[in-house]
Amino acid sequence: MHDLVIIGGGGAGLTAAIKAKKTNMDARITLINKESVSYSPCSLPFVISGEIEGLDRISHDLREICKEDEITCVIDTVTSIDVKKKVVKVGSGREFPYTSLIIATGSLPSIPPTQGIDLKGVYTLQWIEDAQAILEELRAAKNAVVIGGGSVGLEMAEAFIKRGIKVTMIQRSGHVLRRSLDPEFSKMVEDELMRNGVEILFNTPVKEIRGEGGHVNAVVTPNGEIPADIVLFGVGAVPNVELARNAGIKVDEGGIDTDDLMQTNIDDVYAAGDCVDSMSIVTGKLMLSQLGTTAIRQGTVAGMNAVGGYVTFEGVLNSMVLKLFDLEVGRTGLTVKDAEAEGIKVVIGTAVGKTKAEYFPGAKDVKIKLVFNALNRRLIGAQIAGAEGVAGKIDLLAFAIANNAEIVDLMKLKYCYTPPITPSHNLIVLAAENAFKKLRRFIEVRKRRF
Amino acid sequence: MHDLVIIGGGGAGLTAAIKAKKTNMDARITLINKESVSYSPCSLPFVISGEIEGLDRISHDLREICKEDEITCVIDTVTSIDVKKKVVKVGSGREFPYTSLIIATGSLPSIPPTQGIDLKGVYTLQWIEDAQAILEELRAAKNAVVIGGGSVGLEMAEAFIKRGIKVTMIQRSGHVLRRSLDPEFSKMVEDELMRNGVEILFNTPVKEIRGEGGHVNAVVTPNGEIPADIVLFGVGAVPNVELARNAGIKVDEGGIDTDDLMQTNIDDVYAAGDCVDSMSIVTGKLMLSQLGTTAIRQGTVAGMNAVGGYVTFEGVLNSMVLKLFDLEVGRTGLTVKDAEAEGIKVVIGTAVGKTKAEYFPGAKDVKIKLVFNALNRRLIGAQIAGAEGVAGKIDLLAFAIANNAEIVDLMKLKYCYTPPITPSHNLIVLAAENAFKKLRRFIEVRKRRF
Repeated sequence: MHDLVIIGGGGAGLTAAIKAKKTNMDARITLINKESVSYSPCSLPFVISGEIEGLDRISHDLREICKEDEITCVIDTVTSIDVKKKVVKVGSGREFPYTSLIIATGSLPSIPPTQGIDLKGVYTLQWIEDAQAILEELRAAKNAVVIGGGSVGLEMAEAFIKRGIKVTMIQRSGHVLRRSLDPEFSKMVEDELMRNGVEILFNTPVKEIRGEGGHVNAVVTPNGEIPADIVLFGVGAVPNVELARNAGIKVDEGGIDTDDLMQTNIDDVYAAGDCVDSMSIVTGKLMLSQLGTTAIRQGTVAGMNAVGGYVTFEGVLNSMVLKLFDLEVGRTGLTVKDAEAEGIKVVIGTAVGKTKAEYFPGAKDVKIKLVFNALNRRLIGAQIAGAEGVAGKIDLLAFAIANNAEIVDLMKLKYCYTPPITPSHNLIVLAAENAFKKLRRFIEVRKRRF
Repeated sequence: MHDLVIIGGGGAGLTAAIKAKKTNMDARITLINKESVSYSPCSLPFVISGEIEGLDRISHDLREICKEDEITCVIDTVTSIDVKKKVVKVGSGREFPYTSLIIATGSLPSIPPTQGIDLKGVYTLQWIEDAQAILEELRAAKNAVVIGGGSVGLEMAEAFIKRGIKVTMIQRSGHVLRRSLDPEFSKMVEDELMRNGVEILFNTPVKEIRGEGGHVNAVVTPNGEIPADIVLFGVGAVPNVELARNAGIKVDEGGIDTDDLMQTNIDDVYAAGDCVDSMSIVTGKLMLSQLGTTAIRQGTVAGMNAVGGYVTFEGVLNSMVLKLFDLEVGRTGLTVKDAEAEGIKVVIGTAVGKTKAEYFPGAKDVKIKLVFNALNRRLIGAQIAGAEGVAGKIDLLAFAIANNAEIVDLMKLKYCYTPPITPSHNLIVLAAENAFKKLRRFIEVRKRRF
């Protein structure tokens, strides 16, 4: 009899459990999670904004889900893994022997050491309890400060605005989303936030968080004090690898080291989700992914392989889409910044178009940027921003990158068209044609050098 | 000096002219068109529905467009082509010698021989004058009959409803869009039309169109008479090839025969758009495409090649999307019916999902069907219907077909996700996983036979 134990019931762990059961009906599967609720952390900002009514709408009883799929669910905290004895121990003292193990311990919010972070009213948004506490507190709040310009920070800035709270974002660098987007796309996001009332302080470090009676009342920067009834840190998350490291499992650039079967360096121990390092499909190098989509795919691979299936994980492109007020912004693969850091010579294709036929009422602007490797003409990255339809295009371009598409392949795209929902000239084709023209120039410039 | 003459200023001809000029700045380009206005015929139903205010919004002066691009524009009707002398003659008697020629004569509405088709109030929708006439007549109309269930017929049924006119569709076969969709997807379109007040008579031939005082007042079927102040034939279009045929240019299955450079069988004579036969990317066989997107791409290829460039045309997938009331429906490649007719063994992947995270307010159903060749696991067709986001997915799947994607490639799609606009489980991935499971069954069934 095969005993699969899974540590963590988030996107990676729960997916692994369900896929394992479907792959091997005879396997006994035990899922250990410290919370008894299952939810998508990505949904929390939208409950806080009021767009989704209440946390009940997004959370389910993990035990109920497990029961349906004949998975044993244990609500407890894992305290140690013994990879020699092949046993997992939990807080209550119980031990769970395993034939194979999946570690899906997720990530922990990253909080830079700052005076005042322990004050009441200072939050990160990682767990459902964080959302609960913020929801309770925002009724009385008038001023919010968001520290950091990652996706959670941006979504929370919008959420506070939608609750009628004044929002100041403090951004250490010169742009929001600077790890995901090139500056001109970050700028579009910033403009959309500011247009909707978010104040953004760029290139501004946080000196201190100040409070009164144990509760935050201001954030101090070199330029002065910003009143704050509520402070949210949205500066990212770090892989939760302590348990794995203590068990002697190899940890790489921050995350657990896994191969293409999602196996760690220890036999029969797999890992998936926010706690692992992933390989970039473009560069072949390790990177952090920490996306729900990556967790689902890695959970699928780990779950199937851990019970005798065979699936390989292909790597990540960090395809991402955000909706901020009336702007959708998406990206996949490498930005120009990323490519330059890798020493890849690029050719850029850009285009500006409309969301539908330009003469159709309600047609809005969309902007696209395709990044190609200039030497082999392959697509390596894309960024899009506009009012709608961004997600489908990002998915297409991610598929194109993963399948080694070249400029001409995109120029030949067999796209569909109808005036009320798409323009007659496809934005991706236009951007590819733009890159093609520049590539000819690029080749001519090279020729002239000889 | 290179003289390029282009016959026809629609999607194919005008694109050819512009791309030719960009490819070869020294070429002298003459565009001959019988109308002095340029417009997208696909937009006409939306002017008739009132969604676009007036024909002025969608039409431009062709001569102005040509002037901007230094293209000579001649408003006249071509009467003959002399491929030996390399001269085109127009109605006014003028002759245009050419170095290379592009025929982009488009299509003509197909009207089955029926008694009463010459009555006033009986229309097809091909030219802007048709739209003008219908717009004038619909003010007084109470009952409209649409004959045929092609895309124009369906869009016109919606347009009449939006103008407060009672609509009856007469459908010779058992389903609308039966050449584009499998029955269950046709059914979704029919349900949406009926839900919005369109009456559809299936398996019903038209016996006669009846009138009084020279104007239509009823359409007669074997089951009775349907009152009609206005009748629209939406039964498709046939390639306009008379001019080419008279000049001795080879015509295939209805359309002009072209190679992958869009060359006809006569030296230096190219053809593009609705008047040509196209190759299916999936089957490698000739078929009609007659889509604006195909016209643009073929016009690009013909235009560039006709002035010394080199581009190949890759064939068609007939990617299509329609918006009918609150339903978007799209398709690309082969339907199951098509595949069966070709003798291709298929495995189907289906999935039903939501347009955004299922807990997000406003999430609506989307249904997808992927058709794979069961023997090489390649994607050969797709159909999607839902409230939104259909076009982007169809484009992705068309790209996947054209690039020989297999089931596992789609299972590995690096899609993006954010609750307000996409679900955490991508519909394409779910459908590919569904096909993969069935394929395993398919293989097991084959094994058991031996």
